[in-house]
Amino acid sequence: MDHVRRVGQLRRRMTRAGLSGLLVTHLPDLRYLSGFTGSSAALAITRRAARLFTDGRYRAQASEEVAGAKVEIVSGAPAAAAVQWLAAQPGVFSAGFDPVWTSVAELAGLRAALPARLRRAFLSGLAAPLVEPLRLVKDEDELALMTHAALIGCTLFEDILGVIRPGITEVEIAAELEYQARLRGAEGMSFETIVAAGARSALPHGRATSAPLPRKGFVTLDFGIIHNGYCSDMTRTVYLGRPRGEERNAYEAVLEAQEAAVAAVSAGVSCGEVDEAARSVLRRVGMAEAFSHSTGHGVGLEIHEAPRVGADQKARLQPGMIVTIEPGVYWPGKFGIRIEDMVAVTRNGSQVLTPAPKALIEL
Amino acid sequence: MDHVRRVGQLRRRMTRAGLSGLLVTHLPDLRYLSGFTGSSAALAITRRAARLFTDGRYRAQASEEVAGAKVEIVSGAPAAAAVQWLAAQPGVFSAGFDPVWTSVAELAGLRAALPARLRRAFLSGLAAPLVEPLRLVKDEDELALMTHAALIGCTLFEDILGVIRPGITEVEIAAELEYQARLRGAEGMSFETIVAAGARSALPHGRATSAPLPRKGFVTLDFGIIHNGYCSDMTRTVYLGRPRGEERNAYEAVLEAQEAAVAAVSAGVSCGEVDEAARSVLRRVGMAEAFSHSTGHGVGLEIHEAPRVGADQKARLQPGMIVTIEPGVYWPGKFGIRIEDMVAVTRNGSQVLTPAPKALIEL
Repeated sequence: MDHVRRVGQLRRRMTRAGLSGLLVTHLPDLRYLSGFTGSSAALAITRRAARLFTDGRYRAQASEEVAGAKVEIVSGAPAAAAVQWLAAQPGVFSAGFDPVWTSVAELAGLRAALPARLRRAFLSGLAAPLVEPLRLVKDEDELALMTHAALIGCTLFEDILGVIRPGITEVEIAAELEYQARLRGAEGMSFETIVAAGARSALPHGRATSAPLPRKGFVTLDFGIIHNGYCSDMTRTVYLGRPRGEERNAYEAVLEAQEAAVAAVSAGVSCGEVDEAARSVLRRVGMAEAFSHSTGHGVGLEIHEAPRVGADQKARLQPGMIVTIEPGVYWPGKFGIRIEDMVAVTRNGSQVLTPAPKALIEL
Repeated sequence: MDHVRRVGQLRRRMTRAGLSGLLVTHLPDLRYLSGFTGSSAALAITRRAARLFTDGRYRAQASEEVAGAKVEIVSGAPAAAAVQWLAAQPGVFSAGFDPVWTSVAELAGLRAALPARLRRAFLSGLAAPLVEPLRLVKDEDELALMTHAALIGCTLFEDILGVIRPGITEVEIAAELEYQARLRGAEGMSFETIVAAGARSALPHGRATSAPLPRKGFVTLDFGIIHNGYCSDMTRTVYLGRPRGEERNAYEAVLEAQEAAVAAVSAGVSCGEVDEAARSVLRRVGMAEAFSHSTGHGVGLEIHEAPRVGADQKARLQPGMIVTIEPGVYWPGKFGIRIEDMVAVTRNGSQVLTPAPKALIEL
């Protein structure tokens, strides 16, 4: 990972925003900029220097991991130390912070700890976050890591098909999937694995329960792994037994909607247009009401990142963005279906990172 | 769970704080007060009514889970809808929010969406959070759930001893532990499982890697499960082979420090005194420098809750609090040792919730 280049890009954004100092406290931003993977730290950046503050637990780890910033071990709150350091740098008269990731209480505490003359003006919020726009366009290193994570996800899906059968519980399927994920190198799962069978497939976020799988019905699997810090995310819905006509039609409609949205992914297209590509297919077959959520979201070091692929979203796709495309339909008490891929925006169109089969699998 | 009683307790605190309305957005607080386990919602509470706002994905789940509050499905941001609703309630002229869990950007957005006459004064921060003091004293239902979660943790530890051997990788141990946790009912792990062997045991937060276990040396396991929403947390350090005198002495010192801190846990005692009980033992044997973190932390719906059991912390323990006691020593490049229990404060003293053996286990 070229952390030095990323900090350079950030400095150009700082200059354009008129900032001589920046406080970074959101851990995924910090990891993106410095390589540090611990759970407590703050990063202070000026136009000439960068310093990462963390506590004694991370002394060895920080010195191994961090590139492009000096590491300082502190006993108090890292963010407070970072602000004090910024305030002491020559030529730094104010520091930006990210208002999305700074709480009202934290800001008050940081301000109170500053000398009186700096208290009012030194910490100025940013109208727009500075690190997020860097992170949402993945560089080549990141694309390689995410492609790998997504492919592990596909392998896990194909392997778990051999386990899915009537009588096994949802949680046993989740346990097996997560175990195999670990053995294939995942640090963990990017969110609580969803295994939702039969009528439970109508819960868009149905967590795996000890309910045994029915003899007949849909089973939705929505899961992601974290691999080298990057999240994968995919959903497939399979069928136990042979589906009725109504069920097969609904599946085909969701698949058509999903493929239409995947086909719409391209640099310059707005997120709202991608959402509409899926939604219009379901509207045409009278299922728009059953599609109760957005089409997708950005993904990277965090499972939910910008951009949001939802109705009327104006943000435009750029090469290097990676978004999920995951339309679904849900009829409470009956059944639900969702199909999800990760899709990378390329210079010439898009690339699906999760090439697992999508035609309806009957088990 | 008696959510109605909890909301009643909260209303008494609201009255004392002079608040006629309260916005709750921190998800563990929301779960504590209403039972809702989804990933997006806001709860609005007045002295007479309570309403939970969430999105369409959670329609069925919210109506199943939520007690003591009316559920309303909204298409926009739940917090914005909650504030609008509060502003429309008769007799509600201002609403509190938790500054620890509200970002600077979110607050600005909520204020901007209010009618101009309310914009300045309606959302007033709280000097002290209102829900946290309720949550840090666990009620009987919670104590039962956490006792159960902690015991599952102990069983997992005893079972994993059969797996730990030279040559197996740290990550294989973590995978097996997490798999068994799932089969025993865990929704997931409360943090990334730490398995750190040999010289890696000197990393207090060493994540499990693909490093094979050495023939000889300490292995630290620090892990927790989430069961019915509640987190467990425990650490044991075992030895592969036969320890040298220096290693055995260090282990005995940590164990003595840990037991001294456990013995100090009692209602009315300050967290700083509990920390000092551990620290003074290690100071006496010249190992204070190697103990580079706090003694422990509260645990419950979140893995890290108040109170912090650290040096000079003035907060006093109360019956119903559950804290971890986890002193450790670390010599970079050589080895590290940590021993951790969950301890509940009772009326007459304390109760260790993680009764797994602590005498040094040689494998």
